[in-house]
Amino acid sequence: MTETQTRPEPAALRGEPKVLKVALLGCGTVGSQVARILLEDADALAARAGARLTLAGIAVRNPDATRDVELPRELFTADAEGLIDGADLVIELMGGIEPARTLILRAVRNGASVVTGNKALLAQEGPALFEEADKNNAELSFEAAVAGAIPIIRPIRESLSGDRITRVLGIVNGTTNYILDQMDSTGAAFADALAEAQRLGYAEADPTADVEGHDAAAKAALLATLAFHTPVSLDDVRCQGIAQVTAEDIAAAKDSGLVIKLLAIAELVSVGEGGTEGRGGEGVSVRVHPTLLPREHPLSAVRGAFNAVFVEAENAGELMFYGAGAGGRPTASAVMGDLVSTARRVVAGAPGRTDTATRVLPIVGVDAVTTSYSIGLEVADQPGVLARVAAVFAEHGVSIEAMRQTIDGGVPGNGNGRAELRFVTHRASEKALAETVADIKNLDVVESVTSVLRVEGV
Amino acid sequence: MTETQTRPEPAALRGEPKVLKVALLGCGTVGSQVARILLEDADALAARAGARLTLAGIAVRNPDATRDVELPRELFTADAEGLIDGADLVIELMGGIEPARTLILRAVRNGASVVTGNKALLAQEGPALFEEADKNNAELSFEAAVAGAIPIIRPIRESLSGDRITRVLGIVNGTTNYILDQMDSTGAAFADALAEAQRLGYAEADPTADVEGHDAAAKAALLATLAFHTPVSLDDVRCQGIAQVTAEDIAAAKDSGLVIKLLAIAELVSVGEGGTEGRGGEGVSVRVHPTLLPREHPLSAVRGAFNAVFVEAENAGELMFYGAGAGGRPTASAVMGDLVSTARRVVAGAPGRTDTATRVLPIVGVDAVTTSYSIGLEVADQPGVLARVAAVFAEHGVSIEAMRQTIDGGVPGNGNGRAELRFVTHRASEKALAETVADIKNLDVVESVTSVLRVEGV
Repeated sequence: MTETQTRPEPAALRGEPKVLKVALLGCGTVGSQVARILLEDADALAARAGARLTLAGIAVRNPDATRDVELPRELFTADAEGLIDGADLVIELMGGIEPARTLILRAVRNGASVVTGNKALLAQEGPALFEEADKNNAELSFEAAVAGAIPIIRPIRESLSGDRITRVLGIVNGTTNYILDQMDSTGAAFADALAEAQRLGYAEADPTADVEGHDAAAKAALLATLAFHTPVSLDDVRCQGIAQVTAEDIAAAKDSGLVIKLLAIAELVSVGEGGTEGRGGEGVSVRVHPTLLPREHPLSAVRGAFNAVFVEAENAGELMFYGAGAGGRPTASAVMGDLVSTARRVVAGAPGRTDTATRVLPIVGVDAVTTSYSIGLEVADQPGVLARVAAVFAEHGVSIEAMRQTIDGGVPGNGNGRAELRFVTHRASEKALAETVADIKNLDVVESVTSVLRVEGV
Repeated sequence: MTETQTRPEPAALRGEPKVLKVALLGCGTVGSQVARILLEDADALAARAGARLTLAGIAVRNPDATRDVELPRELFTADAEGLIDGADLVIELMGGIEPARTLILRAVRNGASVVTGNKALLAQEGPALFEEADKNNAELSFEAAVAGAIPIIRPIRESLSGDRITRVLGIVNGTTNYILDQMDSTGAAFADALAEAQRLGYAEADPTADVEGHDAAAKAALLATLAFHTPVSLDDVRCQGIAQVTAEDIAAAKDSGLVIKLLAIAELVSVGEGGTEGRGGEGVSVRVHPTLLPREHPLSAVRGAFNAVFVEAENAGELMFYGAGAGGRPTASAVMGDLVSTARRVVAGAPGRTDTATRVLPIVGVDAVTTSYSIGLEVADQPGVLARVAAVFAEHGVSIEAMRQTIDGGVPGNGNGRAELRFVTHRASEKALAETVADIKNLDVVESVTSVLRVEGV
């Protein structure tokens, strides 16, 4: 079958017994669990979907490779295109951009609805894929792409479709949350907590994508797109990882009743006439960075490798969605939820719309966002230092909410030791805060700026 | 238009511009917010729904009454039936059984999809209403019926439709959570915390439905129906309220690192040959009672009047959904999410299936459920008391996990005071635990059983 040929009407519409053929692309950690569930739970799934979901085959590079789960050899094929052309529903769990992109396009052009967990592909090619799916009356679902098993995509797209989401704060990377949680509970240094995470399989041998925040950034782009009904791509996300977070940062946060989390933050901001876009209205700011949160904030209780997404909406108020953010079985649960939901609509005869972008909002530069900073300084322990530092804050219109001083190796003010100062500011523009930090760094009484962390949820 | 007459095709299907007429029944706290949102956010809603959602009218008993929100007088009518007959979508927010039931039936027989927040009606008449909706190809949605703004119905029905939910633990009543949280944080007695809740508007003048757990029980029945794909009605729910929880219970829980929450619990249990139904297989247990939870359990962090639903599923693992459980605006958000989602499907031409009951599982009597008890006793402070009490546990095969003794007015064992004993048991059958408590009560050395609380999450 070529890409332009009309596909026969799904079996579901041709009378009882309804059968939908499912093609699975990829058979890694998640794919093998999806195959297992399709085979083991066939009867229950048929009852819930209103049609039998028959696993037609699994396309993989090497059909003879050994798998995590024991699956019949005859299901495997290297011919992904042939498998897709005979399918009513296609599950893409190969990851990466190609050949996933081409195969998904082939499926939706065939009129088959697609379920995918490929966040990298969606963050890069989402709009084009959704457009093609809509054009062909096919659905493209991707609950598994963000926060594993946690239902967050569907709640945002459907449950909150009558509300106005104003902010999304997400712990969407289990590896970094595990590392930060270990540092918080044991006082470990970053390198040691990372090594422990690697030993336990929570972090990969090359942890860059997790630790530098790139994985979280792709998810932030997807969440922002859905929450604000506007296209946001990976390039629009400002991203800072956790490699610079020190045991001292964690200890100081703890002393102040705070905890450090790597948050994906997507915010609707008002773009005044002085905004970066030069016109009034709404804009979107999307960023990933280590963030201080009060310990009583619901996100602070998210421990270990768990994920959670905190949503603020105009009418709903504060909502949080919590659960396992990764792993074969949890992520397979999300894939299966999409598959059964899509199957129900295919049985009913009309897939839903997949594209939720209904407007194009400006992406707001970080300078226009207001936030609050925690700033750690190593200073000479001399009289008058605090006054000079405070003057710099005042110059930039940044007001100080709290200050702590720790004397290292001496009594205060006798000039023979060093002191550490930690400031927490009130909310101010990112621009004013960054300029404050730059000017403080240049003071001769300041030996170094030991940490700059943003604070949320206060 | 009579109930049997065929309704004209929705405007949405007759070409651009698509318009769907919305009838609102009831204009209380939630209804007035829904009306406000429909009027204020009309453009954004139209973009998301794919059709303009026009508020055709609001049916109320007295169209001239004053409302929480200022709304155009001409929208109000006392003719609910006339309003329904001209509508594509109907929102029922009147509450109570009649006339809500008759009006919803009229709407779905007209082919109009219905959004409701009426948990009492659904817990009593759900199956009949869903059947009638399906027969007429209409949708019946009810996200607002459980846990206010929190998306929990749709995640269970759709996101988890490919998984096997094994347990649902919910804090689904804000009033009782507020009272218990006050008792926990201030040490207040139940009566004082209730009075405070009434003063602040968290509890009604007659708090019976909340305090006795009836409100939570209706929600438990709905959650169990959806989670286990089997009909569960209010009568199937065993229910115990919080009026008997004392400040001493709370303090003792705190000392042991526990917190007391009123939980709605729905569990899939295996019914062995010795089960109450006399045959093997699966059964369902649904109950509401004050429950001890470890402080590190995610539900323990749910403070004040907030709600949360904790779901355990075979593949997804542990999930939690948290947010505002009541209030006009949050609940209106849930109603609007249902409305926009339904509208999208009406625009696409095929509503989804509403009935998720695909099997009939036995309701398991509480005797067949295993749980763990915390038992408080006032005993004579004499040598040998502990041994005699412990012997009763052993007799019934209930093993003790922890014991604490507090001496009141004397040194231990000198016979001149009373002592308080608190036991926490390992999991045992509810039957064995109840018999243990009954036998302990009859011991001459036991003055009274001061508290019996169930423990979850350990």
